[in-house]
Amino acid sequence: MQKILAIANLVKDWQIDDIKDLASNYQVKMADQLTDADFPNIEIQYGWNADLAEKYAANGYDSLRWIQVQFAGINQLPKEIVTDEKIQITNMSGIHAIPIAETVFGYILNYYRSLHIYKAREEKQHWEYAQHMSLPGKKMVVFGAGNVGKEIARIGQAFGLETVGVNTSGRDVDYFDQTVKTADGFEKVTDANIIVNVLPETAATKNVFDAAYFSRQEKKPLFINVGRGSAIVDQDLIEAIDKGDIDYASLDVFREEPLPADHPFWAHDKIDVTPHMTGQVEHFAIETYKIFQANLTAYTKDGDLSVNVVSKEKGY
Amino acid sequence: MQKILAIANLVKDWQIDDIKDLASNYQVKMADQLTDADFPNIEIQYGWNADLAEKYAANGYDSLRWIQVQFAGINQLPKEIVTDEKIQITNMSGIHAIPIAETVFGYILNYYRSLHIYKAREEKQHWEYAQHMSLPGKKMVVFGAGNVGKEIARIGQAFGLETVGVNTSGRDVDYFDQTVKTADGFEKVTDANIIVNVLPETAATKNVFDAAYFSRQEKKPLFINVGRGSAIVDQDLIEAIDKGDIDYASLDVFREEPLPADHPFWAHDKIDVTPHMTGQVEHFAIETYKIFQANLTAYTKDGDLSVNVVSKEKGY
Repeated sequence: MQKILAIANLVKDWQIDDIKDLASNYQVKMADQLTDADFPNIEIQYGWNADLAEKYAANGYDSLRWIQVQFAGINQLPKEIVTDEKIQITNMSGIHAIPIAETVFGYILNYYRSLHIYKAREEKQHWEYAQHMSLPGKKMVVFGAGNVGKEIARIGQAFGLETVGVNTSGRDVDYFDQTVKTADGFEKVTDANIIVNVLPETAATKNVFDAAYFSRQEKKPLFINVGRGSAIVDQDLIEAIDKGDIDYASLDVFREEPLPADHPFWAHDKIDVTPHMTGQVEHFAIETYKIFQANLTAYTKDGDLSVNVVSKEKGY
Repeated sequence: MQKILAIANLVKDWQIDDIKDLASNYQVKMADQLTDADFPNIEIQYGWNADLAEKYAANGYDSLRWIQVQFAGINQLPKEIVTDEKIQITNMSGIHAIPIAETVFGYILNYYRSLHIYKAREEKQHWEYAQHMSLPGKKMVVFGAGNVGKEIARIGQAFGLETVGVNTSGRDVDYFDQTVKTADGFEKVTDANIIVNVLPETAATKNVFDAAYFSRQEKKPLFINVGRGSAIVDQDLIEAIDKGDIDYASLDVFREEPLPADHPFWAHDKIDVTPHMTGQVEHFAIETYKIFQANLTAYTKDGDLSVNVVSKEKGY
């Protein structure tokens, strides 16, 4: 029986034609055309969502060998699939780097130049200076020095920031003036003016930004979370801001999404809440397809994948 | 009689001591210590304000030879002083380049990533995507390719923007992929995604952004004015936004400042109003003093000035 390539990502018509050409030995089906009986025959899955997860769970995935997810992490995938050695996973890490960096600098410049404050004052025709700061010479520490962290550091250097990257090994990474190992990043870098978390969710990155971490900060920094919500102890962050350990926070990711209406982050006047949008790509169908196409070309040639292969061990 | 060096800029105590050392032949006085009889004896004026302008007008300025203003332009100085060939003028052009560029990219990223929209939604705990765009490949045209325009272009290139500079001669300038002459900038560059005006006020730069200019735009651009308010025909800009020739405007400078409470810019939902703050420098007394100190060192040596000398002919 012919194996299936199932598409659950946004695609253009020309991309479907291109996929059919590249994967001529496969039956190409859109996710909404899949029957229950199809699931055990799907070998390649392009794109992922909660509905598919349920159907795979109900109908099995005996033939599944490769999932190309349309997001940067993999924590939206079921654990049994992530741990299944037969299934390779590729993600869209990198594609989100540019919009995430743009959004991070939007947060930073809003804060440094008081732009949200001025926006709020327009309603009352209120003409008065707020606080103005500038970036040259300030220190930014980025937790996670992969594609996304590197792009944030690159823009940071253009703005004259001193950039410190945190990664597992402490190895050098382009655009970081300095890199440190994870434990040192949390415990020894205590003089940052701007803290940016881009760490993916793993067992090691939960609840890492807690009262102890915040209380070590000496410069009343701006704290930005565009990694995962579980990295922060929510109540500890609020207390750190109220105590003055942290001056302001811009948060895009949360433990529960959408952020519940009664969560105190919404109403706090020193917290920005955005709806997990930093990585949103302007031409999504085109940008994501470049990565899938590169992998599909390699996979149909010899079964290997060429870009953004997720390590089962590391989880990213 | 000993000539006077008068200080009307923000200064630190150590800077006053340093000035007294450098200008040992002068009597150094703070502006609020000046008597009416002092004015005809002032040779060097550091800093300028409306109060001083009145007192010079009333008491004369026979000895005045050099004014170091603390702003980027010179249009706050009385015309008779600007046109007086005996008086040299230096400004703070350059010092404002970094904060202006930071603010301009704050405006741009707010617009491209919808951050003001998300901020406004926090009050209603409203979690929903707005529009997201990215900068690589977009075209930014900057009217005025001096220190400030160049810094905006430098950051623009780091974000992947195509940068077009407009200056009088069309000569090449660093960080601009292309430069064009003034007339061509207004008439032929009609496909920009982002328009930034940093032109100083001169006879040639009044009312230049009018209905005819706006109607030529093909890409519904973001329009940013951090030059002078008189460059824009206010009503034409509002009509251009309402018609869709311009998508959004971020304005920091206005014909009348503070912007009058009944001006329609305040309430327009596609216009940002900020209180002429883009150039506000974080450590103003320190950053401005570097320029004054360099000039004072040169002036007391041989009467020449070394940096940021304003051309009487060009007016900047």
